[in-house]
Amino acid sequence: MPTVTMIGGGQLARMTHQAAIALGQCLRVLAATDADPAAQVSADVVLGSHNDLADLREAAKGAVAVTFDHEGVPLAHLQALEAEGVAVRPPSAALHFAQDKLAMRVRLAELGLPVPAFADLTGDRDTARAQFVSFGEVHGWAIVLKAIRGGYDGRGVWLLDDRDEALTVFDEQYAAGAGLIVEQKVAMRRELSAMIARSPFGQGGAWPVVETVQRKGQCAVVLAPAPGLSDGVAEQAQQMALRLADELGVVGVMAMELFETDDGDLLVNELAMRPHNSGHWTMDGAVTSQFEQHLRAVLDYPLGDTSPRAAITVMANVLGADEAPVMSMDERLHHLMARMPDAKVHLYGKGERPDRKIGHVNIVGTQNDSVADVRERAERAAHWMSTAEWTDGWDVH
Amino acid sequence: MPTVTMIGGGQLARMTHQAAIALGQCLRVLAATDADPAAQVSADVVLGSHNDLADLREAAKGAVAVTFDHEGVPLAHLQALEAEGVAVRPPSAALHFAQDKLAMRVRLAELGLPVPAFADLTGDRDTARAQFVSFGEVHGWAIVLKAIRGGYDGRGVWLLDDRDEALTVFDEQYAAGAGLIVEQKVAMRRELSAMIARSPFGQGGAWPVVETVQRKGQCAVVLAPAPGLSDGVAEQAQQMALRLADELGVVGVMAMELFETDDGDLLVNELAMRPHNSGHWTMDGAVTSQFEQHLRAVLDYPLGDTSPRAAITVMANVLGADEAPVMSMDERLHHLMARMPDAKVHLYGKGERPDRKIGHVNIVGTQNDSVADVRERAERAAHWMSTAEWTDGWDVH
Repeated sequence: MPTVTMIGGGQLARMTHQAAIALGQCLRVLAATDADPAAQVSADVVLGSHNDLADLREAAKGAVAVTFDHEGVPLAHLQALEAEGVAVRPPSAALHFAQDKLAMRVRLAELGLPVPAFADLTGDRDTARAQFVSFGEVHGWAIVLKAIRGGYDGRGVWLLDDRDEALTVFDEQYAAGAGLIVEQKVAMRRELSAMIARSPFGQGGAWPVVETVQRKGQCAVVLAPAPGLSDGVAEQAQQMALRLADELGVVGVMAMELFETDDGDLLVNELAMRPHNSGHWTMDGAVTSQFEQHLRAVLDYPLGDTSPRAAITVMANVLGADEAPVMSMDERLHHLMARMPDAKVHLYGKGERPDRKIGHVNIVGTQNDSVADVRERAERAAHWMSTAEWTDGWDVH
Repeated sequence: MPTVTMIGGGQLARMTHQAAIALGQCLRVLAATDADPAAQVSADVVLGSHNDLADLREAAKGAVAVTFDHEGVPLAHLQALEAEGVAVRPPSAALHFAQDKLAMRVRLAELGLPVPAFADLTGDRDTARAQFVSFGEVHGWAIVLKAIRGGYDGRGVWLLDDRDEALTVFDEQYAAGAGLIVEQKVAMRRELSAMIARSPFGQGGAWPVVETVQRKGQCAVVLAPAPGLSDGVAEQAQQMALRLADELGVVGVMAMELFETDDGDLLVNELAMRPHNSGHWTMDGAVTSQFEQHLRAVLDYPLGDTSPRAAITVMANVLGADEAPVMSMDERLHHLMARMPDAKVHLYGKGERPDRKIGHVNIVGTQNDSVADVRERAERAAHWMSTAEWTDGWDVH
């Protein structure tokens, strides 16, 4: 059976390895240390850096495809591998748009896909500052300043509502050398994610569109499918994601994060060309998980069935404890299992730090379960795993 | 998180490792070679023999529990480990009955559980032969001769219908040194399996009782739940298995294989105190898989929900190709995925030999699917993976 290499040893690689086992494979991972979540569990680990071309070459040796659990690999290295005949999936030409928020915004706008108003602040300081001020004057000072590269889970994103504060942050970040863009802050109902897969052959597959709930700038809860979303809007989101993947030549899974505005319109927020937090629900709630699908896509296998297994599945992230926890993770797991025998827990083998994602819980609804009930149980389970404190019902609003 | 060691590097350990990953662990396996199915995919492999006490000690070092993917470990070695404080699960006192078919039959009969008529043929040659003849005269010559130890997948079991043939096989096997028992061949409707789990705390959990279809002496197809089985008989089977596990002090999952006689009665056939072929359907068809449940049990965690996810799930084993296959396994997988996007394939990373189990396929029924349809699809998928030949419908009768 073929070998796939994943660059990065985090939880996404860890869960991709689980899927690889069923397909008769062992996922090879390029990990920084043997304590990385994926390196702990795979028999085929290359230790090295994703910034080092020699390490990337070593990891790619003999693999039929190289893929990623993060967007951090220098594009020039990927182009070098491609020139040497390595099947880089997604290819560098597509991954570029997941790495560079300015290029992504420009390309989306060219393709006529709906995006928030934005401006390029990469010019010299005086020009960029003048553009920034002008943008604020035109669109109002409810804005989002973003680093073009390297942001995730709230890092590299500044939500600003005040002119003076905005200019202070701009001055600091510009001086620190961050390439920046500014976007209008959108008055929105909620955030959605359209998760799809695309194979080199060109086959596409879309899971139901989900609602994502963000806290402290990172994904906290996912409701699958998004409650109350009309079929028309859901299909529009899926078609946008499939079309974009086709236009960019994406291979693998892709998450298109969207805003549903107060007017019910969709705007594209971010793209991720890899398994994504908004797809973790598929591990238990869909016929084909995002991890199996990603492997199928990068191997150019036919894609799997994306049907949901239940009317509602809710995923809640488990975060690292705020302080030294009273109970070990093992004890917390034990107690959660006693309270919720149907909770599907996925732990990443990571050390705890406040707000660090160390696992997630999926609750798959059964007949007659309301969305609110399933959500309440998923959030309570994750809250317990994070804090070893039960709540008597969790405020989900 | 705790480390569990599994003795044996086969497919059962491989799939247990998948479940361990979700619980934040890495399964340690004692494997004969690094090409064993589990050794290919786990980061924690001890190479050695399950017959060597030093190797067993090495594998047990630092583990909170030692468990098994087969019944072949010498009981004296397990008793030695237990004397040294190792948590052997299931304990040697229980495993004894899965290793020794005579002890199992005697114990079941003592407990009043229904078993076929049987006789002990372990005495000296003349006494044993006389008992054999007497058994045949009383019960008729439709009999089953069994080796007391080491049989699996049809090995060590002889189905006999003729006096002369029976005596020939008896003479051969007795001379070869096999400890033997004889049982009456039961006129039966079908075979069933009651799969349960038990924790050291004493918690028990039962999955729905399934129908197993045997071919060439090994499990070929599993229908979950067993079609048309009355609730009363199903509950009787579950209660028998749970009670036996309790009486014997079993820890982990246990399969009780049963005959449903022509009269609708149940008789106990075999026991397995480990994940079992008749439980593979749980990986996709139940809330908690047998592999996760086995880990929960040996760790003395609370057990998981055993509810089925669908009205019918069918598992079909993929066997090694008869001759040099026209297509590689990778190509066969590719084509299966194209034809059945909802088929859940589990491959073991094993080389192909005729009739060797190298994987299985689960088809989880959706609403309106008949049992016959789901079975036909599962058998067709497995047949294709074994032979690279499609059938236009598969005769399931």
